[in-house]
Amino acid sequence: MQVNGKNYRTVWMKGQSVFMIEQRLLPHTFKVVELKSLDSVCDAISTMVVRGAGAIGASGAFGLALGVLNDDSLDLSEFKKNILIYYKKLVETRPTANDLKHGLDFVMARITDCNDILKIKNLAYIAACEYADTGSENCRKIGEHGAKLIKDGYKILTHCNAGWLAFVDFGSALSPVYTASRSGKKVFVYVDETRPRLQGANLTSFELSGENIPHSIIADNAAGFFMQKGSVNMVITGADRIAVNGDAANKIGTYEKAVLAFENGIPFYIAAPSSTIDLECESGKFIPIEKRDSSEVTQVYGRLKDGSFGSVLVAPSGSNAENPAFDVTPARYITGIITEKGVIKANRKSILENFGK
Amino acid sequence: MQVNGKNYRTVWMKGQSVFMIEQRLLPHTFKVVELKSLDSVCDAISTMVVRGAGAIGASGAFGLALGVLNDDSLDLSEFKKNILIYYKKLVETRPTANDLKHGLDFVMARITDCNDILKIKNLAYIAACEYADTGSENCRKIGEHGAKLIKDGYKILTHCNAGWLAFVDFGSALSPVYTASRSGKKVFVYVDETRPRLQGANLTSFELSGENIPHSIIADNAAGFFMQKGSVNMVITGADRIAVNGDAANKIGTYEKAVLAFENGIPFYIAAPSSTIDLECESGKFIPIEKRDSSEVTQVYGRLKDGSFGSVLVAPSGSNAENPAFDVTPARYITGIITEKGVIKANRKSILENFGK
Repeated sequence: MQVNGKNYRTVWMKGQSVFMIEQRLLPHTFKVVELKSLDSVCDAISTMVVRGAGAIGASGAFGLALGVLNDDSLDLSEFKKNILIYYKKLVETRPTANDLKHGLDFVMARITDCNDILKIKNLAYIAACEYADTGSENCRKIGEHGAKLIKDGYKILTHCNAGWLAFVDFGSALSPVYTASRSGKKVFVYVDETRPRLQGANLTSFELSGENIPHSIIADNAAGFFMQKGSVNMVITGADRIAVNGDAANKIGTYEKAVLAFENGIPFYIAAPSSTIDLECESGKFIPIEKRDSSEVTQVYGRLKDGSFGSVLVAPSGSNAENPAFDVTPARYITGIITEKGVIKANRKSILENFGK
Repeated sequence: MQVNGKNYRTVWMKGQSVFMIEQRLLPHTFKVVELKSLDSVCDAISTMVVRGAGAIGASGAFGLALGVLNDDSLDLSEFKKNILIYYKKLVETRPTANDLKHGLDFVMARITDCNDILKIKNLAYIAACEYADTGSENCRKIGEHGAKLIKDGYKILTHCNAGWLAFVDFGSALSPVYTASRSGKKVFVYVDETRPRLQGANLTSFELSGENIPHSIIADNAAGFFMQKGSVNMVITGADRIAVNGDAANKIGTYEKAVLAFENGIPFYIAAPSSTIDLECESGKFIPIEKRDSSEVTQVYGRLKDGSFGSVLVAPSGSNAENPAFDVTPARYITGIITEKGVIKANRKSILENFGK
């Protein structure tokens, strides 16, 4: 994606550093942070400097490569023991996203049989870069397949940010929108603001502006209103983990929008690369749901009048809030899953046929 | 309701002034404002110093009485012409709430046949006070009827603020909760924060804290999650206008929660006094929906770290947002309407039997 005429990925590695776009400052300030240690990558993932299924996956892969590169052990077994510790640290930063484990496992698979410290370092670096490249390419393909579903003049509703910033490039839910728009189709996007972290208002609107795609930010509460009015032709969201039966975990509120789309006869698509599918997970009820801090609900973070960043308190001080970060949309509400291999049905048969081992 | 050991109504009149609680500063600062002119009452309604169906209705009635009292015309026909201007000014401040017109019409009916300026002033004042008293009493009765639906241990989800602050006293949706709790039943409330204006996070949580009722504020996006989990026994919301066929307009997002309750087999109740029923309105499609400023979506207002009040920008500056303030929940999703006369069905027959002219 282009920002100020320059091409950017969301996360990348150069030398002994991982670079990522500081997403918490967007859309107001565009800044790239350089991370030189595994711990700082862990911190960046858990505090949401970087967020979004694919971007977390690539960050995990790069973080693991960084840990491996920075490890000065001379003893192979100590070195390998350390790598397992790095793996564990990284995989625990966000419990719901499947891509994180997928990215880490991808790197691990490439190094596990190697017994040469220098070679392992090389292999880990190459694997992480390859993981990011493949992730980017898969998202591009999702765009191609998904764009075929979008007719000229369509109004599309999306929830959270599943665009370029949520992946290495292109995105999942927004990739078909970008492809359709670049091919000359007129599209309009309703952007759910996506409380509590407001990734829709902050990030999706930033991306759509960059692509000159007309859109309106709406309160999450208004999505049903526009569906009921007949103003929404389709809903596309991303996913953080898809179970074998087609149930999909995604940002909190996705389940609500899926039920409302179903009730209003509007197609509801999940767009996600195969890295999001968890073949070990039989159904949505086994997907762990991350609970985040209640302050994300009671305090709203953004740009203050003086240009600095801060929060406003929007509840009685000390009040209780619950903050599940994800929910699970049962497969029966999902019209189809847009993957790098094409649009598949959200059921066990279709998922195993296309992505079974 | 009690605040700091003192009993308060949301809005009242004393001498030539209308007093109301400044709701935009809650829950952080409790302040009563004194309004000495009709224009300042209009301003307070449209800028949401006061909000909520019944509170707007009483504010309209008091505002009209204030306009009448302050009018110095000596000529009766000029005086009466002015009253029509005051009526028009007030009724246009908020288009969706039926109670506003109801309150104004109540005062008008009492003065319309009188041809003595001094008597009209007296009648208007008495009518406005009576309107407020009746509104308060009806809400108390809603509490009694609604509490019968609440079992010990129930977890209740509510949207927006339909409590004491939304009416003259007691509230609609929260009145049954208060009555149940005061009678010794254990209740727990999930409080939808209610974007964009956050009346749930700010006001409902403030009220529930005052009554020592355990509750959690949640992002509106999380309501479906808790319903799906089986954590919600019933949903109660207020309404701003109910059509003869039972369709109910209420705060944006209510429709979403009603559909989700329906889908999850959870009873969904509207609690509203008969003043909310618009017998002239055949169905929800005729209810005008207020569109408010987009800045309510792109900027979030609250208490800053230094204790002052301000906003944070949560979207690219200059970005487009749409902000419908209400939506319509079709009658088929409504289990029942809790009124001052009891719980009735949300259909034409039941509404006309109980509240037809």
